[in-house]
Amino acid sequence: MSSSLETSLDPPPGAGYFARVGVAELATELRAGRVSSRDLVETALGEAARWQPVLNAFVTIDETGARAAAEKADRELAAGVDRGPLHGLPIAVKDIIDVHGLPTTAGARHFAGHIASRDADCIRPLREAGAVILGKTTTHEFACGPTGDRSASGPTRNPYATGHMAGGSSSGSAAAVAAGIVGLALGTDTGGSVRIPAACCGVVGLKPTHGAVATTGVFPLAPSLDTVGPLARTAADCRLLWTVMTAGHRQPVAAPRIGWVPPDSIHPTAPEITSLARDLTKDLIIGEVTVPAVKELRAAYRTIQGSEAYAVHAERLATAPELYGDEVRDRLRTGGQARGWEYVRALELRDRVRGAVTDLLRQQDFLALPTIPLSPPTLDSRDETIGGEAVDVRAALLALTSPWSVLGLPAVTVPAGLVDGLPVGLQLVGPPGTEHRLLTVAEYLQNTSS
Amino acid sequence: MSSSLETSLDPPPGAGYFARVGVAELATELRAGRVSSRDLVETALGEAARWQPVLNAFVTIDETGARAAAEKADRELAAGVDRGPLHGLPIAVKDIIDVHGLPTTAGARHFAGHIASRDADCIRPLREAGAVILGKTTTHEFACGPTGDRSASGPTRNPYATGHMAGGSSSGSAAAVAAGIVGLALGTDTGGSVRIPAACCGVVGLKPTHGAVATTGVFPLAPSLDTVGPLARTAADCRLLWTVMTAGHRQPVAAPRIGWVPPDSIHPTAPEITSLARDLTKDLIIGEVTVPAVKELRAAYRTIQGSEAYAVHAERLATAPELYGDEVRDRLRTGGQARGWEYVRALELRDRVRGAVTDLLRQQDFLALPTIPLSPPTLDSRDETIGGEAVDVRAALLALTSPWSVLGLPAVTVPAGLVDGLPVGLQLVGPPGTEHRLLTVAEYLQNTSS
Repeated sequence: MSSSLETSLDPPPGAGYFARVGVAELATELRAGRVSSRDLVETALGEAARWQPVLNAFVTIDETGARAAAEKADRELAAGVDRGPLHGLPIAVKDIIDVHGLPTTAGARHFAGHIASRDADCIRPLREAGAVILGKTTTHEFACGPTGDRSASGPTRNPYATGHMAGGSSSGSAAAVAAGIVGLALGTDTGGSVRIPAACCGVVGLKPTHGAVATTGVFPLAPSLDTVGPLARTAADCRLLWTVMTAGHRQPVAAPRIGWVPPDSIHPTAPEITSLARDLTKDLIIGEVTVPAVKELRAAYRTIQGSEAYAVHAERLATAPELYGDEVRDRLRTGGQARGWEYVRALELRDRVRGAVTDLLRQQDFLALPTIPLSPPTLDSRDETIGGEAVDVRAALLALTSPWSVLGLPAVTVPAGLVDGLPVGLQLVGPPGTEHRLLTVAEYLQNTSS
Repeated sequence: MSSSLETSLDPPPGAGYFARVGVAELATELRAGRVSSRDLVETALGEAARWQPVLNAFVTIDETGARAAAEKADRELAAGVDRGPLHGLPIAVKDIIDVHGLPTTAGARHFAGHIASRDADCIRPLREAGAVILGKTTTHEFACGPTGDRSASGPTRNPYATGHMAGGSSSGSAAAVAAGIVGLALGTDTGGSVRIPAACCGVVGLKPTHGAVATTGVFPLAPSLDTVGPLARTAADCRLLWTVMTAGHRQPVAAPRIGWVPPDSIHPTAPEITSLARDLTKDLIIGEVTVPAVKELRAAYRTIQGSEAYAVHAERLATAPELYGDEVRDRLRTGGQARGWEYVRALELRDRVRGAVTDLLRQQDFLALPTIPLSPPTLDSRDETIGGEAVDVRAALLALTSPWSVLGLPAVTVPAGLVDGLPVGLQLVGPPGTEHRLLTVAEYLQNTSS
């Protein structure tokens, strides 16, 4: 098979088969009989096994289930039953999303031995589209952290530099796509948990509008912020997966007008990252945009996420505190200290700024800024400097993604190049419900830059 | 004029003109030229002045404005401009609702000298209907308390027994209607602040569905609970005022089925109060109803109200704590201690129980129970006993009203008789949007019992 995948980044060294072939080509090959779903699944299983000791991208690899689903997909195609572009293609699912019959660990020792008794709502359209679930990917413990290096099943590593973080919390999904183990994956994004690892691993990741995808069967972090989003190597593939997830249709985009949000107005950002991200969009930028109260939105994120996450975990923290990793336990307990009136103020701020940003998004179609303000740090790093200024790694990772989470807006990250061999992500933010338009613009940027 | 007002209670001793004549009769008399709006306003001003040293129902009596509005109403009627049943009738407005050109004190020393520069949204339809605003009625400080005996302008007293509470926080509106100073008044109800004083003073009061009446221009207590509601001596008059407030229409009620909520399942209740309230509805009761998690709703009320009220007052508490009365300051500070995760849990409970109660309200049209579980205590009393059990007065006053506030449901209180000379209220609770049906049933009960 030819190598036809258009993307703005070369895959990392040693990347597997799916880093070089996209969904459209695979669909053609399958229907031409030049490859079978069973072939693809065996390839994916081989890549998963090969990469596992290096990346730790998977918690569970479902060889039996994946092989059975692939054989069914092949039988259907042979019988003329065609479920569309994802039919027979392997996909990986973050291990905080229930898949019937497989463990859901949520990266937590509390859930050892827990087997999901049904599919999460977001899994059903994948099955109906004939996708093959290869396994469950490593998540930061309880999805509560942006680094991807705290999990009951160990840290995920970055395929571009295995001493570095993959980002989190959907660390395994991003790493598995970047390493070419699968072409498609599901993650969840509460404050950046799809976008941050996608940016760290040089792939495309979409955080949808809050509420656009049902979260039933997904273990919550902070329900008023939680979303389920797709990851893929290209925006085109991400859009195909998104279409299956929502039964949605492509929206036309005529000459999108993009407002550039200078990232230093939110958080100190490495100049070479700002430069790469801005270069990728420069033909579409119509001006610079100041987002009102954006720093207050970051504080509101901490209050909302902290309060809602503690509400999810209160009893568990009381009865089984020893099962948490130290860092996540501390993080949850800190979140539980927020006051009710601060939560009320955070919701009020959300409403107020949502109105102001809606106005901004009438003057330009999308906002653009880097996805994360620094290169993926080394594993376990918690303190870095950006332009000589000391920053907290976890706060820095969330700084440019979490404001849009508070506002419930959709946002996509698309690779913008490498700095010292590590990926840089450009983030595009749109009005509610514009996922397809965002992915179409992302696709345009990927194709013109590669 | 004849005494034609149908109500289930005799007015208190010495009650004024408006305790004996209802809106319908006044409207007829006005149009027959047997009385003028100016006559009615002079009568109301006279009653207000006569009662003020006894009840302290008013903070501001707007003699000039009321006389001018009455003269305009008379000119219009003479010219054939008829604004409907409230045209030319005096009405009193709780002093937490902005009326253009008059002080809004909110019962607080913080607002001394503050003059409202515009009408609250809920005032406009009253003016368009030709009602005459007589003045602003005493409120518990910042509407934060159910007793009506803590206010910068002093306590309101109960017209049935002036050593006793009028209830709160809409204490002056209820007392003014009960004493016949006016026939109609506006109050606000966050956890019972219309219903509690209406029950204490033997009048009818409606807490509408949350969101049914705009609260713009009303000083907030807890925005997710705050409502504006009408008070009148009869349900019929209350319904006329409600119709003007909402431009709504009467909804038909065929043989309402009422579920009785045993009040002791929520809070200890004086047996003679339970008995009077139940007697009033007995022909309509189809069975007893258990409301799920109703005690948890009371706790949720404290968390929601406490958090939202502190969010309103945080800066004021920091900069001018000395201007608060001790009790309200302590109450606000206690509310500020609630945690964000507890607020989140309270909102979750609200959603969960709302579903269950919606199901209950498919099996019966309305729920019925007493409005308050004890007779209005003496002024300043904070500890009472009910059936030998010690109770906190403020918690007791709110116990039977606040669960419906958390659920956002409409509820009306209607007089059910006297115990030791003090009024007893029956409360009816309905599904969202059923205010007219509630008032129609209340009217039926008043007419059949009188």
